[in-house]
Amino acid sequence: MRVSNNGRLIGVGTGPGDPDLLTVKAVKALEAADVVAYFAKQGRSGNGRAVVEHLLRPGIVLLPLYYPVTTEIEKDQDGYKTQITAFYDESANAVARHLDAGRTVAILSEGDPLFYGSYMHLHVRLAHRYQTDVIPGITAMSGCWSLAGMPIVQGDDVLSVLPGTMAEVELTRRLGDTQAAVIMKVGRNLPKIRRALDASGRLDQAIYVERGTMQHGAMIRLRERGDDEAPYFSLILVPGWDGRP
Amino acid sequence: MRVSNNGRLIGVGTGPGDPDLLTVKAVKALEAADVVAYFAKQGRSGNGRAVVEHLLRPGIVLLPLYYPVTTEIEKDQDGYKTQITAFYDESANAVARHLDAGRTVAILSEGDPLFYGSYMHLHVRLAHRYQTDVIPGITAMSGCWSLAGMPIVQGDDVLSVLPGTMAEVELTRRLGDTQAAVIMKVGRNLPKIRRALDASGRLDQAIYVERGTMQHGAMIRLRERGDDEAPYFSLILVPGWDGRP
Repeated sequence: MRVSNNGRLIGVGTGPGDPDLLTVKAVKALEAADVVAYFAKQGRSGNGRAVVEHLLRPGIVLLPLYYPVTTEIEKDQDGYKTQITAFYDESANAVARHLDAGRTVAILSEGDPLFYGSYMHLHVRLAHRYQTDVIPGITAMSGCWSLAGMPIVQGDDVLSVLPGTMAEVELTRRLGDTQAAVIMKVGRNLPKIRRALDASGRLDQAIYVERGTMQHGAMIRLRERGDDEAPYFSLILVPGWDGRP
Repeated sequence: MRVSNNGRLIGVGTGPGDPDLLTVKAVKALEAADVVAYFAKQGRSGNGRAVVEHLLRPGIVLLPLYYPVTTEIEKDQDGYKTQITAFYDESANAVARHLDAGRTVAILSEGDPLFYGSYMHLHVRLAHRYQTDVIPGITAMSGCWSLAGMPIVQGDDVLSVLPGTMAEVELTRRLGDTQAAVIMKVGRNLPKIRRALDASGRLDQAIYVERGTMQHGAMIRLRERGDDEAPYFSLILVPGWDGRP
Protein backbone atom coordinates (compact mmCIF):
# COMPACT_ATOMS: atom_id res chain seq x y z
CA MET A 1 0.00 0.00 0.00
CA ARG A 2 2.86 2.42 0.76
CA VAL A 3 4.16 4.39 -2.21
CA SER A 4 7.90 4.76 -2.55
CA ASN A 5 8.94 8.22 -1.49
CA ASN A 6 10.72 9.63 1.51
CA GLY A 7 7.92 11.72 2.94
CA ARG A 8 6.91 10.66 6.42
CA LEU A 9 3.68 11.48 8.23
CA ILE A 10 3.62 11.58 12.04
CA GLY A 11 0.47 12.11 14.07
CA VAL A 12 1.71 13.59 17.34
CA GLY A 13 -0.42 13.54 20.49
CA THR A 14 0.26 16.74 22.44
CA GLY A 15 -1.57 15.66 25.60
CA PRO A 16 -3.89 17.68 27.85
CA GLY A 17 -1.97 20.97 27.73
CA ASP A 18 1.06 20.80 30.06
CA PRO A 19 4.21 20.72 27.87
CA ASP A 20 5.78 18.30 30.38
CA LEU A 21 3.01 15.81 29.57
CA LEU A 22 4.35 15.38 26.03
CA THR A 23 6.05 12.01 25.60
CA VAL A 24 9.79 11.79 24.93
CA LYS A 25 8.87 10.34 21.52
CA ALA A 26 6.72 13.38 20.68
CA VAL A 27 9.53 15.75 21.70
CA LYS A 28 12.01 13.91 19.46
CA ALA A 29 9.57 13.85 16.54
CA LEU A 30 8.84 17.58 16.80
CA GLU A 31 12.52 18.48 17.06
CA ALA A 32 13.23 16.49 13.89
CA ALA A 33 10.19 17.45 11.79
CA ASP A 34 10.50 19.55 8.63
CA VAL A 35 6.90 20.74 8.77
CA VAL A 36 4.50 21.08 11.71
CA ALA A 37 0.82 21.15 10.75
CA TYR A 38 -2.05 21.90 13.14
CA PHE A 39 -5.75 22.62 13.13
CA ALA A 40 -6.92 25.99 14.46
CA LYS A 41 -9.88 28.32 14.40
CA GLN A 42 -9.56 31.36 12.13
CA GLY A 43 -7.50 34.00 13.89
CA ARG A 44 -6.27 31.62 16.63
CA SER A 45 -2.91 29.89 16.87
CA GLY A 46 -4.28 26.59 18.21
CA ASN A 47 -3.90 25.01 21.66
CA GLY A 48 -1.77 22.16 20.36
CA ARG A 49 0.78 24.58 18.94
CA ALA A 50 1.14 26.54 22.19
CA VAL A 51 2.13 23.32 23.98
CA VAL A 52 5.00 22.59 21.54
CA GLU A 53 6.14 26.16 20.77
CA HIS A 54 9.39 25.76 22.79
CA LEU A 55 10.42 22.71 20.73
CA LEU A 56 10.15 24.17 17.23
CA ARG A 57 13.42 24.87 15.40
CA PRO A 58 13.90 28.37 13.96
CA GLY A 59 12.88 28.27 10.33
CA ILE A 60 10.60 25.26 10.66
CA VAL A 61 7.68 25.33 8.22
CA LEU A 62 4.36 25.86 10.01
CA LEU A 63 1.23 24.71 8.23
CA PRO A 64 -1.91 25.99 9.99
CA LEU A 65 -5.14 24.34 8.84
CA TYR A 66 -7.93 26.80 9.57
CA TYR A 67 -11.41 25.36 10.08
CA PRO A 68 -14.02 26.93 7.82
CA VAL A 69 -16.48 29.23 9.58
CA THR A 70 -19.56 27.02 9.85
CA THR A 71 -21.21 28.50 12.92
CA GLU A 72 -24.32 29.50 10.98
CA ILE A 73 -24.87 25.95 9.67
CA GLU A 74 -26.36 23.17 11.83
CA LYS A 75 -24.03 20.17 12.10
CA ASP A 76 -26.62 17.71 10.85
CA GLN A 77 -27.31 19.65 7.65
CA ASP A 78 -25.87 18.55 4.32
CA GLY A 79 -24.19 21.92 3.82
CA TYR A 80 -22.05 21.40 6.92
CA LYS A 81 -20.90 17.95 5.84
CA THR A 82 -20.02 19.13 2.36
CA GLN A 83 -18.02 22.07 3.66
CA ILE A 84 -16.15 20.12 6.34
CA THR A 85 -15.37 17.23 3.97
CA ALA A 86 -13.95 19.69 1.44
CA PHE A 87 -11.87 21.26 4.21
CA TYR A 88 -10.37 17.91 5.25
CA ASP A 89 -9.69 17.03 1.60
CA GLU A 90 -7.87 20.33 1.04
CA SER A 91 -5.95 19.95 4.30
CA ALA A 92 -4.83 16.43 3.33
CA ASN A 93 -3.70 17.77 -0.06
CA ALA A 94 -1.70 20.55 1.59
CA VAL A 95 0.07 17.98 3.79
CA ALA A 96 0.56 15.60 0.84
CA ARG A 97 2.43 18.27 -1.15
CA HIS A 98 5.09 18.37 1.60
CA LEU A 99 5.20 14.56 1.84
CA ASP A 100 5.62 14.29 -1.95
CA ALA A 101 8.61 16.63 -1.64
CA GLY A 102 10.18 14.13 0.78
CA ARG A 103 9.55 16.07 3.98
CA THR A 104 8.64 14.75 7.42
CA VAL A 105 5.35 16.31 8.47
CA ALA A 106 4.24 16.23 12.13
CA ILE A 107 0.53 16.86 12.63
CA LEU A 108 -0.32 18.07 16.11
CA SER A 109 -3.30 16.53 17.86
CA GLU A 110 -4.46 17.62 21.31
CA GLY A 111 -4.82 14.67 23.65
CA ASP A 112 -4.41 11.36 21.82
CA PRO A 113 -4.53 11.46 17.98
CA LEU A 114 -6.84 8.47 17.41
CA PHE A 115 -9.18 9.20 20.36
CA TYR A 116 -11.73 11.78 19.13
CA GLY A 117 -8.95 13.75 17.39
CA SER A 118 -9.25 15.86 14.22
CA TYR A 119 -6.00 14.24 13.09
CA MET A 120 -8.03 11.13 12.23
CA HIS A 121 -9.56 12.91 9.22
CA LEU A 122 -6.07 13.35 7.75
CA HIS A 123 -4.96 9.88 8.83
CA VAL A 124 -7.70 8.12 6.85
CA ARG A 125 -6.83 10.19 3.77
CA LEU A 126 -3.02 9.76 3.91
CA ALA A 127 -1.85 6.79 6.01
CA HIS A 128 -2.35 4.24 3.20
CA ARG A 129 -0.24 6.36 0.83
CA TYR A 130 2.72 7.40 3.03
CA GLN A 131 4.92 5.95 5.75
CA THR A 132 2.96 6.90 8.86
CA ASP A 133 3.52 6.77 12.61
CA VAL A 134 1.09 7.72 15.32
CA ILE A 135 2.54 8.82 18.66
CA PRO A 136 -0.06 8.43 21.41
CA GLY A 137 -0.72 11.28 23.83
CA ILE A 138 -2.14 11.62 27.33
CA THR A 139 -5.90 12.05 26.94
CA ALA A 140 -7.73 14.97 28.54
CA MET A 141 -9.67 12.51 30.71
CA SER A 142 -6.45 10.94 31.99
CA GLY A 143 -5.01 14.40 32.69
CA CYS A 144 -8.19 15.20 34.62
CA TRP A 145 -8.35 12.17 36.88
CA SER A 146 -4.60 12.40 37.57
CA LEU A 147 -4.91 16.06 38.57
CA ALA A 148 -7.90 15.14 40.73
CA GLY A 149 -5.92 12.26 42.28
CA MET A 150 -9.07 10.23 41.68
CA PRO A 151 -8.86 6.48 40.97
CA ILE A 152 -11.29 5.93 38.09
CA VAL A 153 -11.41 2.16 37.44
CA GLN A 154 -10.04 -0.96 39.14
CA GLY A 155 -10.36 -4.71 38.77
CA ASP A 156 -13.37 -5.70 36.68
CA ASP A 157 -14.94 -2.23 36.42
CA VAL A 158 -16.59 -1.16 33.15
CA LEU A 159 -15.69 2.36 31.98
CA SER A 160 -18.07 4.19 29.62
CA VAL A 161 -16.94 7.26 27.71
CA LEU A 162 -20.13 9.16 26.87
CA PRO A 163 -20.68 12.34 24.84
CA GLY A 164 -22.85 14.85 26.72
CA THR A 165 -24.66 15.50 23.44
CA MET A 166 -26.76 12.33 23.65
CA ALA A 167 -30.45 12.31 24.58
CA GLU A 168 -31.24 12.57 28.30
CA VAL A 169 -33.03 9.22 28.54
CA GLU A 170 -30.13 7.48 26.81
CA LEU A 171 -27.52 9.18 29.00
CA THR A 172 -29.50 8.24 32.14
CA ARG A 173 -29.70 4.61 31.02
CA ARG A 174 -25.99 4.39 30.28
CA LEU A 175 -24.95 6.06 33.56
CA GLY A 176 -27.00 3.46 35.42
CA ASP A 177 -25.35 0.65 33.45
CA THR A 178 -21.66 1.25 34.16
CA GLN A 179 -19.27 1.32 37.10
CA ALA A 180 -17.33 4.39 35.91
CA ALA A 181 -18.07 7.10 33.37
CA VAL A 182 -16.38 10.00 31.64
CA ILE A 183 -18.79 12.52 30.13
CA MET A 184 -17.27 14.58 27.30
CA LYS A 185 -18.65 17.67 25.50
CA VAL A 186 -20.26 19.16 28.57
CA GLY A 187 -20.76 22.80 27.47
CA ARG A 188 -24.41 23.76 27.21
CA ASN A 189 -25.42 20.15 27.96
CA LEU A 190 -24.63 20.58 31.66
CA PRO A 191 -28.22 20.93 33.00
CA LYS A 192 -29.26 17.82 31.06
CA ILE A 193 -26.20 15.88 32.26
CA ARG A 194 -26.94 16.86 35.87
CA ARG A 195 -30.52 15.55 35.55
CA ALA A 196 -29.26 12.28 34.04
CA LEU A 197 -26.69 11.85 36.84
CA ASP A 198 -29.38 12.53 39.43
CA ALA A 199 -31.89 10.12 37.84
CA SER A 200 -29.25 7.38 37.67
CA GLY A 201 -28.15 7.89 41.27
CA ARG A 202 -24.62 9.00 40.35
CA LEU A 203 -24.76 12.75 41.06
CA ASP A 204 -23.06 12.58 44.47
CA GLN A 205 -19.98 10.95 42.98
CA ALA A 206 -19.65 13.24 39.96
CA ILE A 207 -16.61 15.51 39.68
CA TYR A 208 -16.54 18.48 37.28
CA VAL A 209 -13.17 19.39 35.71
CA GLU A 210 -12.58 22.24 33.30
CA ARG A 211 -9.40 20.95 31.73
CA GLY A 212 -6.64 18.53 32.63
CA THR A 213 -4.29 21.50 32.70
CA MET A 214 -6.23 23.72 35.08
CA GLN A 215 -5.52 24.62 38.67
CA HIS A 216 -7.11 22.51 41.37
CA GLY A 217 -9.77 25.20 41.86
CA ALA A 218 -11.41 24.29 38.55
CA MET A 219 -12.15 20.77 39.72
CA ILE A 220 -15.11 20.52 42.05
CA ARG A 221 -17.95 18.22 42.98
CA LEU A 222 -20.72 18.80 40.45
CA ARG A 223 -23.12 19.26 43.41
CA GLU A 224 -21.18 22.42 44.28
CA ARG A 225 -21.32 23.94 40.80
CA GLY A 226 -24.17 25.90 39.24
CA ASP A 227 -25.74 25.19 35.86
CA ASP A 228 -24.18 28.16 34.06
CA GLU A 229 -22.67 27.14 30.73
CA ALA A 230 -19.45 25.13 30.97
CA PRO A 231 -16.61 25.29 28.42
CA TYR A 232 -17.08 22.73 25.63
CA PHE A 233 -13.95 20.87 26.62
CA SER A 234 -14.84 20.44 30.28
CA LEU A 235 -15.37 16.89 31.56
CA ILE A 236 -17.40 15.12 34.19
CA LEU A 237 -15.86 12.09 35.90
CA VAL A 238 -17.81 9.42 37.76
CA PRO A 239 -15.37 7.07 39.53
CA GLY A 240 -16.08 3.36 39.62
CA TRP A 241 -13.88 2.36 42.52
CA ASP A 242 -14.38 3.01 46.20
CA GLY A 243 -10.87 2.13 47.34
CA ARG A 244 -11.49 -1.40 48.59
CA PRO A 245 -9.14 -4.10 47.30
CA MET B 1 -5.55 16.48 55.53
CA ARG B 2 -1.84 16.77 54.57
CA VAL B 3 0.56 16.29 57.48
CA SER B 4 3.53 18.60 57.65
CA ASN B 5 6.64 16.77 56.56
CA ASN B 6 8.82 16.92 53.50
CA GLY B 7 8.17 13.45 52.12
CA ARG B 8 6.59 13.50 48.69
CA LEU B 9 4.73 10.70 46.96
CA ILE B 10 4.63 10.54 43.16
CA GLY B 11 2.60 7.99 41.20
CA VAL B 12 4.43 7.70 37.88
CA GLY B 13 2.73 6.26 34.82
CA THR B 14 5.32 4.34 32.81
CA GLY B 15 3.14 3.86 29.73
CA PRO B 16 2.75 0.77 27.53
CA GLY B 17 6.39 -0.34 27.53
CA ASP B 18 8.42 1.82 25.11
CA PRO B 19 10.76 4.05 27.20
CA ASP B 20 10.17 6.85 24.67
CA LEU B 21 6.48 6.81 25.61
CA LEU B 22 7.29 8.08 29.10
CA THR B 23 6.24 11.71 29.52
CA VAL B 24 8.84 14.42 30.07
CA LYS B 25 7.31 14.90 33.53
CA ALA B 26 7.81 11.22 34.39
CA VAL B 27 11.46 11.38 33.26
CA LYS B 28 12.12 14.45 35.45
CA ALA B 29 10.37 12.86 38.44
CA LEU B 30 12.37 9.64 38.15
CA GLU B 31 15.68 11.47 37.75
CA ALA B 32 14.94 13.46 40.94
CA ALA B 33 13.44 10.70 43.11
CA ASP B 34 15.20 9.41 46.23
CA VAL B 35 13.36 6.08 46.18
CA VAL B 36 11.75 4.17 43.31
CA ALA B 37 9.12 1.64 44.40
CA TYR B 38 7.46 -0.90 42.09
CA PHE B 39 5.24 -3.95 42.21
CA ALA B 40 6.64 -7.22 40.87
CA LYS B 41 6.05 -10.93 40.98
CA GLN B 42 8.42 -12.94 43.20
CA GLY B 43 11.67 -13.48 41.33
CA ARG B 44 10.85 -10.94 38.59
CA SER B 45 12.13 -7.39 38.29
CA GLY B 46 8.85 -5.92 37.02
CA ASN B 47 7.92 -4.54 33.61
CA GLY B 48 7.59 -0.98 34.87
CA ARG B 49 11.15 -1.00 36.18
CA ALA B 50 12.65 -2.24 32.89
CA VAL B 51 11.12 0.78 31.11
CA VAL B 52 12.81 3.29 33.45
CA GLU B 53 16.11 1.47 34.14
CA HIS B 54 18.13 3.94 32.03
CA LEU B 55 16.88 6.90 34.10
CA LEU B 56 17.79 5.69 37.59
CA ARG B 57 20.71 7.42 39.31
CA PRO B 58 23.51 5.20 40.67
CA GLY B 59 22.83 4.60 44.34
CA ILE B 60 19.10 5.27 44.12
CA VAL B 61 17.09 3.26 46.66
CA LEU B 62 14.96 0.60 44.97
CA LEU B 63 11.94 -0.69 46.86
CA PRO B 64 10.46 -3.77 45.18
CA LEU B 65 7.00 -4.74 46.44
CA TYR B 66 6.59 -8.47 45.78
CA TYR B 67 3.06 -9.79 45.39
CA PRO B 68 2.27 -12.68 47.70
CA VAL B 69 1.96 -16.05 45.98
CA THR B 70 -1.81 -16.51 45.84
CA THR B 71 -2.11 -18.75 42.80
CA GLU B 72 -3.66 -21.57 44.81
CA ILE B 73 -6.45 -19.33 46.17
CA GLU B 74 -9.50 -18.31 44.12
CA LYS B 75 -9.83 -14.53 43.82
CA ASP B 76 -13.36 -14.48 45.18
CA GLN B 77 -12.43 -16.32 48.36
CA ASP B 78 -12.01 -14.50 51.66
CA GLY B 79 -8.48 -15.84 52.07
CA TYR B 80 -7.35 -14.06 48.93
CA LYS B 81 -8.81 -10.72 50.01
CA THR B 82 -7.25 -10.97 53.46
CA GLN B 83 -3.84 -11.77 52.05
CA ILE B 84 -3.86 -9.11 49.34
CA THR B 85 -5.17 -6.43 51.73
CA ALA B 86 -2.38 -7.25 54.18
CA PHE B 87 0.12 -7.02 51.33
CA TYR B 88 -1.09 -3.55 50.30
CA ASP B 89 -1.08 -2.40 53.94
CA GLU B 90 2.52 -3.59 54.41
CA SER B 91 3.56 -2.04 51.08
CA ALA B 92 2.04 1.32 52.07
CA ASN B 93 3.88 1.15 55.39
CA ALA B 94 7.18 0.44 53.65
CA VAL B 95 6.65 3.51 51.42
CA ALA B 96 5.49 5.61 54.41
CA ARG B 97 8.74 4.94 56.28
CA HIS B 98 10.66 6.66 53.45
CA LEU B 99 8.15 9.52 53.26
CA ASP B 100 8.39 10.04 57.03
CA ALA B 101 12.17 10.38 56.61
CA GLY B 102 11.53 13.25 54.17
CA ARG B 103 12.30 11.35 50.96
CA THR B 104 10.62 11.69 47.57
CA VAL B 105 9.24 8.29 46.59
CA ALA B 106 8.24 7.56 42.98
CA ILE B 107 5.94 4.56 42.60
CA LEU B 108 6.03 3.04 39.13
CA SER B 109 2.73 2.14 37.51
CA GLU B 110 2.49 0.50 34.08
CA GLY B 111 0.16 2.39 31.79
CA ASP B 112 -1.73 5.11 33.65
CA PRO B 113 -1.62 5.00 37.49
CA LEU B 114 -5.33 5.63 38.18
CA PHE B 115 -6.64 3.49 35.30
CA TYR B 116 -6.72 -0.14 36.57
CA GLY B 117 -3.28 0.35 38.19
CA SER B 118 -1.96 -1.37 41.32
CA TYR B 119 -0.64 2.04 42.37
CA MET B 120 -4.22 2.94 43.36
CA HIS B 121 -4.02 0.62 46.37
CA LEU B 122 -1.12 2.68 47.75
CA HIS B 123 -2.69 5.98 46.68
CA VAL B 124 -5.84 5.44 48.76
CA ARG B 125 -3.70 4.53 51.79
CA LEU B 126 -1.21 7.43 51.51
CA ALA B 127 -2.44 10.39 49.41
CA HIS B 128 -4.44 11.95 52.28
CA ARG B 129 -1.37 11.84 54.55
CA TYR B 130 1.42 13.06 52.26
CA GLN B 131 1.95 15.59 49.49
CA THR B 132 1.07 13.55 46.41
CA ASP B 133 1.26 14.00 42.65
CA VAL B 134 0.03 11.60 40.01
CA ILE B 135 1.75 11.74 36.62
CA PRO B 136 -0.52 10.23 33.96
CA GLY B 137 0.85 7.67 31.52
CA ILE B 138 -0.07 6.40 28.08
CA THR B 139 -2.53 3.54 28.58
CA ALA B 140 -1.95 0.13 27.00
CA MET B 141 -5.11 0.60 24.92
CA SER B 142 -3.86 3.91 23.55
CA GLY B 143 -0.48 2.35 22.77
CA CYS B 144 -2.32 -0.43 20.93
CA TRP B 145 -4.60 1.66 18.72
CA SER B 146 -1.69 4.02 17.91
CA LEU B 147 0.53 1.13 16.87
CA ALA B 148 -2.35 -0.26 14.81
CA GLY B 149 -2.92 3.19 13.25
CA MET B 150 -6.58 2.52 13.96
CA PRO B 151 -8.96 5.42 14.73
CA ILE B 152 -11.02 4.21 17.68
CA VAL B 153 -13.64 6.91 18.38
CA GLN B 154 -14.80 10.10 16.69
CA GLY B 155 -17.58 12.67 17.13
CA ASP B 156 -20.39 11.37 19.33
CA ASP B 157 -19.18 7.76 19.59
CA VAL B 158 -19.55 5.90 22.88
CA LEU B 159 -16.47 3.93 23.99
CA SER B 160 -16.88 1.00 26.40
CA VAL B 161 -13.90 -0.45 28.24
CA LEU B 162 -14.93 -3.99 29.16
CA PRO B 163 -13.12 -6.68 31.17
CA GLY B 164 -13.08 -10.01 29.33
CA THR B 165 -13.86 -11.68 32.66
CA MET B 166 -17.57 -10.77 32.55
CA ALA B 167 -20.32 -13.28 31.74
CA GLU B 168 -20.84 -14.06 28.05
CA VAL B 169 -24.44 -12.81 27.91
CA GLU B 170 -23.43 -9.55 29.57
CA LEU B 171 -20.44 -9.05 27.27
CA THR B 172 -22.62 -9.74 24.22
CA ARG B 173 -25.20 -7.20 25.37
CA ARG B 174 -22.60 -4.50 26.00
CA LEU B 175 -20.80 -5.07 22.67
CA GLY B 176 -24.14 -4.59 20.92
CA ASP B 177 -24.78 -1.37 22.85
CA THR B 178 -21.65 0.68 22.02
CA GLN B 179 -19.96 2.21 19.01
CA ALA B 180 -16.43 1.28 20.09
CA ALA B 181 -15.03 -1.18 22.62
CA VAL B 182 -11.77 -2.13 24.25
CA ILE B 183 -11.78 -5.59 25.82
CA MET B 184 -9.18 -6.03 28.57
CA LYS B 185 -8.03 -9.21 30.38
CA VAL B 186 -8.31 -11.44 27.34
CA GLY B 187 -6.18 -14.42 28.44
CA ARG B 188 -8.18 -17.62 28.77
CA ASN B 189 -11.39 -15.66 28.11
CA LEU B 190 -10.65 -15.50 24.36
CA PRO B 191 -13.11 -18.20 23.16
CA LYS B 192 -15.93 -16.59 25.15
CA ILE B 193 -15.02 -13.11 23.89
CA ARG B 194 -15.03 -14.38 20.30
CA ARG B 195 -18.53 -15.85 20.74
CA ALA B 196 -19.76 -12.55 22.26
CA LEU B 197 -18.27 -10.55 19.37
CA ASP B 198 -19.88 -12.90 16.87
CA ALA B 199 -23.30 -12.81 18.58
CA SER B 200 -23.21 -8.99 18.70
CA GLY B 201 -22.17 -8.69 15.03
CA ARG B 202 -18.80 -7.10 15.84
CA LEU B 203 -16.38 -9.95 15.10
CA ASP B 204 -15.36 -8.72 11.62
CA GLN B 205 -14.14 -5.40 13.03
CA ALA B 206 -12.26 -6.85 16.01
CA ILE B 207 -8.47 -6.46 16.17
CA TYR B 208 -6.32 -8.53 18.51
CA VAL B 209 -3.17 -6.91 19.97
CA GLU B 210 -0.73 -8.56 22.33
CA ARG B 211 0.78 -5.42 23.80
CA GLY B 212 1.15 -1.79 22.85
CA THR B 213 4.86 -2.36 22.66
CA MET B 214 4.89 -5.29 20.28
CA GLN B 215 5.89 -5.50 16.68
CA HIS B 216 3.19 -5.11 14.05
CA GLY B 217 3.08 -8.89 13.66
CA ALA B 218 1.34 -9.32 17.01
CA MET B 219 -1.62 -7.24 15.90
CA ILE B 220 -4.04 -9.12 13.69
CA ARG B 221 -7.71 -9.38 12.88
CA LEU B 222 -9.27 -11.65 15.47
CA ARG B 223 -10.81 -13.64 12.58
CA GLU B 224 -7.27 -14.67 11.62
CA ARG B 225 -6.24 -15.84 15.07
CA GLY B 226 -6.98 -19.18 16.72
CA ASP B 227 -8.49 -19.68 20.15
CA ASP B 228 -5.27 -20.79 21.86
CA GLU B 229 -4.75 -18.95 25.14
CA ALA B 230 -3.76 -15.31 24.84
CA PRO B 231 -1.48 -13.48 27.31
CA TYR B 232 -3.47 -11.88 30.13
CA PHE B 233 -2.46 -8.39 29.05
CA SER B 234 -3.52 -8.74 25.43
CA LEU B 235 -6.35 -6.52 24.22
CA ILE B 236 -9.14 -6.61 21.68
CA LEU B 237 -10.12 -3.36 19.96
CA VAL B 238 -13.42 -2.76 18.19
CA PRO B 239 -13.28 0.61 16.37
CA GLY B 240 -16.33 2.84 16.34
CA TRP B 241 -15.48 5.04 13.40
CA ASP B 242 -15.53 4.15 9.73
CA GLY B 243 -13.60 7.14 8.46
CA ARG B 244 -16.47 9.28 7.26
CA PRO B 245 -16.55 12.90 8.46
